Amino acid sequence: MELREKILNKEDIFKGKIIDVKMLDVELPNGKKAKREVVYHNGAVGILAFKEDKVLIVEQYRTPIDDIILEIPAGKLDGDEDSLKCANRELREETGYIANKIDYIGEIVTSAGFCNEIIKLYCATDLEYVGDDRDEDEFLNVKEMPVDELRELIRTGKIIDSKTLSAMCFYDNRK
Amino acid sequence: MELREKILNKEDIFKGKIIDVKMLDVELPNGKKAKREVVYHNGAVGILAFKEDKVLIVEQYRTPIDDIILEIPAGKLDGDEDSLKCANRELREETGYIANKIDYIGEIVTSAGFCNEIIKLYCATDLEYVGDDRDEDEFLNVKEMPVDELRELIRTGKIIDSKTLSAMCFYDNRK
Repeated sequence: MELREKILNKEDIFKGKIIDVKMLDVELPNGKKAKREVVYHNGAVGILAFKEDKVLIVEQYRTPIDDIILEIPAGKLDGDEDSLKCANRELREETGYIANKIDYIGEIVTSAGFCNEIIKLYCATDLEYVGDDRDEDEFLNVKEMPVDELRELIRTGKIIDSKTLSAMCFYDNRK
Repeated sequence: MELREKILNKEDIFKGKIIDVKMLDVELPNGKKAKREVVYHNGAVGILAFKEDKVLIVEQYRTPIDDIILEIPAGKLDGDEDSLKCANRELREETGYIANKIDYIGEIVTSAGFCNEIIKLYCATDLEYVGDDRDEDEFLNVKEMPVDELRELIRTGKIIDSKTLSAMCFYDNRK
């Protein structure tokens, strides 16, 4: 079956600092026309960082869900920044650690139905503490969590962040 | 450290059929004011459905990334629809199967930094084919994929959908 839509037009709805929103006109495989609401995002990285058998986990308030959640360190690409460079920068800024070894483990599209955000995921090991470099308006706690405890939190529904769960899935399926 | 922001105001930017966008004024833990661009979504479900040792995988075009990807069956909540009812409905509509057993395995926030979308994930087994019930404007192929093949696609970066990877993470950590 033909699956692909043809994008006919993109109309700007909103241009923000973090996201842009556009309304797209598309032609469906059956020739009919449809509208698509699309959120555009510059992309991000996430880092699954191991300090021996502990994972670095960030506790952070997230405005959209008005709640505090646990996530791997992560951050947005700065313009056309290289994603590996961004991963090293965000790890340092948020946790104070630099990684002597950092490997790409996969990428995710967070919400493919309406958003183009791609997060590239890395696995960092052989960590060295050099002190964090957080923005004065960035508020988070860093936890060094045994992997078994992280798995228990996944099992009991306490980890809901999609990049954290996806990173663990990539990690477990690569072993 | 105090992490929580206080939401002071929400201004409507865009009201669409799939998403709304608002600009929020918040007060940071240090008392400073900031703006937050937030995408509001009604929520969705995803279903990891097993037909013996095969997983039902949907091949689908996604406009935001202008590409065809592989995902578990999924769909948006219809208004205030119950998520379990939605899971059964979407499984039937997209794949033609009904599940005699369906269990909640966890929920994810897809992009906690700027979006409130929550996807509730289910594991369906004991499937029975009754014929699909797809909208005439819905184009997708259903594959019955051995779990080992799915893991190989995860390992090699061919599965990028965050709900699919998160569902596999929940499934593997519950066993």
